[in-house]
Amino acid sequence: VTVYLVGAGPGDPGLITVRGLDLLRRAEVVVYDRLVAEELVAEAPEGALLVARDRHDQPEVNRLLVEHGLAGKEVVRLKGGDPFVFGRGGEEALALAEAGVPFEVVHGVSAIGSVPGAAGIPVTHRGVSQQVTIATGQACDGASPEFAALANAPGTLVFFMGLARVGRLADGLLAAGRSADTLAAVISKGTTHEQRVVTAPLSELASAVERAGLEAPALVVVGDVVALRERLGLD
Amino acid sequence: VTVYLVGAGPGDPGLITVRGLDLLRRAEVVVYDRLVAEELVAEAPEGALLVARDRHDQPEVNRLLVEHGLAGKEVVRLKGGDPFVFGRGGEEALALAEAGVPFEVVHGVSAIGSVPGAAGIPVTHRGVSQQVTIATGQACDGASPEFAALANAPGTLVFFMGLARVGRLADGLLAAGRSADTLAAVISKGTTHEQRVVTAPLSELASAVERAGLEAPALVVVGDVVALRERLGLD
Repeated sequence: VTVYLVGAGPGDPGLITVRGLDLLRRAEVVVYDRLVAEELVAEAPEGALLVARDRHDQPEVNRLLVEHGLAGKEVVRLKGGDPFVFGRGGEEALALAEAGVPFEVVHGVSAIGSVPGAAGIPVTHRGVSQQVTIATGQACDGASPEFAALANAPGTLVFFMGLARVGRLADGLLAAGRSADTLAAVISKGTTHEQRVVTAPLSELASAVERAGLEAPALVVVGDVVALRERLGLD
Repeated sequence: VTVYLVGAGPGDPGLITVRGLDLLRRAEVVVYDRLVAEELVAEAPEGALLVARDRHDQPEVNRLLVEHGLAGKEVVRLKGGDPFVFGRGGEEALALAEAGVPFEVVHGVSAIGSVPGAAGIPVTHRGVSQQVTIATGQACDGASPEFAALANAPGTLVFFMGLARVGRLADGLLAAGRSADTLAAVISKGTTHEQRVVTAPLSELASAVERAGLEAPALVVVGDVVALRERLGLD
């Protein structure tokens, strides 16, 4: 194998996997996402070629991975969270497969469970939620029947999204019939030392987020599990 | 902190986090799930008290964690996947919080992304799926309107479930209007050396699983992303 698509986890550098860190420590080329912890990028060996992903668009990243892979380099593509969960890792894997470059996916800790968890919110909990629906902020721009179904799905909703869309999301959920006192949380920079959390009923979520001046990246959690935060006393 | 709820990851011992392994290596008490890799349990220090979780019911496990925590022991509760994603970690955390025992959740790699991924299936993929719904096999025993909504949710469905329910799940999805040629995969012992994968249209899923003689634990993935498996060539 020459190219490894490695999940770096949600932010806290201690949440990379043992195998991911091993591979990173012997990589010759590291292509890393902007949101990957600096401490992890610093684990690459001296002399490794370090490439910041955000200076390249996706087709360029794919081409870089294929080129270095074909050259027989040990390449680590260090991605936030898990490569195959809202990470576009499938596109990179497909480019490698089509070019005949051997590759391996090293899964990582997705934000889905860990970011709500770091805010004291289990996404599932017996008697509270046994279902989780994960979508992006784009969902609320979509066709309204689909968004209504999402809005009314039982259990917990988790949205990967920009903070600018929080108001539109809350309004959409309310318009689709969610009650105004449905609890929600917005977690900024989850699992890092700069983590901040805002919880509010849906009807007040956007103004609470604005008042707090939260910064990206953010994750939004909607549902009764948000109430567990206080009982667990984690913060 | 005295009690750590640590996610051991989906099966492959290399997928525990760096922080999780560090804590395990200095634990005085380790309470481990049946599905946690033996290689990980073996990382506990000599002389550590090792407790197999499956010989205790959940209230007993909670009590054990509280007792050893109150005694000031370094306790690692080693759980499959992520503690807060279908892991009952919230119940253990709540028991500790209520007893005033300091604890920390160390998130892990959930099966949600990693088990389909190890079978060559990204749960999200641009132009194919931008939404993931995760439920348990119990969902198909539930009230039919709720199950119909789940069955018709856009994107990818992921079910944590026993193999005995696969037929009932497929029948339920078909009865709720999913087309017979909807692709599905069942992944047995995902990410381990014993991993086996069966893919089939929904209408043939149960018979394909039975023919293959798959063993627990299993995860079921339903949706168009299953077709990516062949294109990615991962197995």
